[in-house]
Amino acid sequence: MSDSELLGLVPSEEGPGRYRFIVEEHLSRMDAQLYGGTAIAVSVAVAELVSERQAMWMTTQFVATIAQGQPVDIHAEVLAPGRRTNQVRVTGTGPDGTTVFASLGATGHPRPEGLTGTFEHMPRVSAPSESEGWASPFSAFAERMGTAAPPMPTNVGFTQLIEMRGAVVEDHPDPGPGRVCVWARRRDRRPITPAVAAFIADMVPMSVAHGFEVFAGATSLDNTVRFGEFEPVEWVLLDLRAHGAIGDYGHGIGHVWSADGRWLATASQTASMRHFDPSALPGSPKP
Amino acid sequence: MSDSELLGLVPSEEGPGRYRFIVEEHLSRMDAQLYGGTAIAVSVAVAELVSERQAMWMTTQFVATIAQGQPVDIHAEVLAPGRRTNQVRVTGTGPDGTTVFASLGATGHPRPEGLTGTFEHMPRVSAPSESEGWASPFSAFAERMGTAAPPMPTNVGFTQLIEMRGAVVEDHPDPGPGRVCVWARRRDRRPITPAVAAFIADMVPMSVAHGFEVFAGATSLDNTVRFGEFEPVEWVLLDLRAHGAIGDYGHGIGHVWSADGRWLATASQTASMRHFDPSALPGSPKP
Repeated sequence: MSDSELLGLVPSEEGPGRYRFIVEEHLSRMDAQLYGGTAIAVSVAVAELVSERQAMWMTTQFVATIAQGQPVDIHAEVLAPGRRTNQVRVTGTGPDGTTVFASLGATGHPRPEGLTGTFEHMPRVSAPSESEGWASPFSAFAERMGTAAPPMPTNVGFTQLIEMRGAVVEDHPDPGPGRVCVWARRRDRRPITPAVAAFIADMVPMSVAHGFEVFAGATSLDNTVRFGEFEPVEWVLLDLRAHGAIGDYGHGIGHVWSADGRWLATASQTASMRHFDPSALPGSPKP
Repeated sequence: MSDSELLGLVPSEEGPGRYRFIVEEHLSRMDAQLYGGTAIAVSVAVAELVSERQAMWMTTQFVATIAQGQPVDIHAEVLAPGRRTNQVRVTGTGPDGTTVFASLGATGHPRPEGLTGTFEHMPRVSAPSESEGWASPFSAFAERMGTAAPPMPTNVGFTQLIEMRGAVVEDHPDPGPGRVCVWARRRDRRPITPAVAAFIADMVPMSVAHGFEVFAGATSLDNTVRFGEFEPVEWVLLDLRAHGAIGDYGHGIGHVWSADGRWLATASQTASMRHFDPSALPGSPKP
């Protein structure tokens, strides 16, 4: 199981639906706390394992942070075991018994002849091979604001696992501010599964910052993902579309596309935006 | 409290965060079971009450059905009481102790000077006064398929509470199949609150059926809603955009707009689509 291996999921002796993983560096944020994408990826992976069905939808709520190196105990339960659809709940608990995250979702057996397709349109963007290492979401407006764009790290936290390349948008079906496109793949080039797509898609707040042209990170309140006809591929295009914000709470979605234009999933998210001063970052050029 | 009154929410003697409501007809589906929009509306309303903050995001998972006339016990808990943001959980339980629905969400205090605005565009549509009673989502393709479009009831279940008028889309920011716009207001013309907007927005599957041009209802797996700068208004435009489907599991979003073009909220949803034969409906003209 590629997901279990990547996430370090180990079945627990406490019974079915019980797992444990350690918050390794590649599952962490830049500040060495659990990365939100890890929590939803774990939730998708164990929901699929416990229900023996494929994930259709998952929402993960972030209740508490937990530091790198700590273990998280996972409990996956099928709340409503339907013939076709299973409603599931996944809870992550820290060593002191604190709830770290809580997830709700559904898995199911798609009907072979059932409705399948998409009404969304993929933006026309530069190919992965023609996209640059990583375009900071801030570079579009940093220069105009007389400061340097803080570079995205490539060897810290989850960026150890995922390679990202900023795509140049050539044509967008719904253009405007807050649209950001990023190519992503696993650095080990293994195929991206639904769980890993959910892992990567925890980046909606970036498009909110981009839309408002502000230097801001965010604390995610939730990650939500809904899956289309998913086929594992090497590269995915994360097509982020900020919806808007109120009083520093930002919302938006991210469609996930294969390189040949198939719609794989749509993530959505609400986050509390945190403004920062780019000139105060370590290593930043002083004006 | 207008929401509590509408939903019949009564504080329980069992302690803070405990409420009860009866599944009255205006809180039901056409088949006399609890309407999904009621469950998310109740979750939004009690999350706001228990946290004394405004709702930012809510996801409601549907675990079991419950029939009209039955009581539902509600338990609202603040899982993480932050200074600004509260992460909350709301659970609805039937008289036999069965979990009917489970919700996760967040409420908060928007920062007065914080990022506020939207990057989405409202479709240009006919005004409520120029829109027709209710355009069946099926009317666009029923005639071509040689059958009559089943009319939407106006005096059964939640349609007792909400008046709907099909809007004619004159210009859409992201056009294509699966785009449906509906004006909605309370029949008593009281202002639509965030909870009532969530109630109304439980209609994404309709846009999935519309996009595929099939006669289908749906069983919702979840309702999710994210709120912008919400101001109570009489009319809202529900701007449904189906994303797609896999094997009869459909996904999509619905933006909620005020008549003067302010973005109030975005709902999203996954549903299991149920095909039906329109000629088999009671009162349908036989071909």
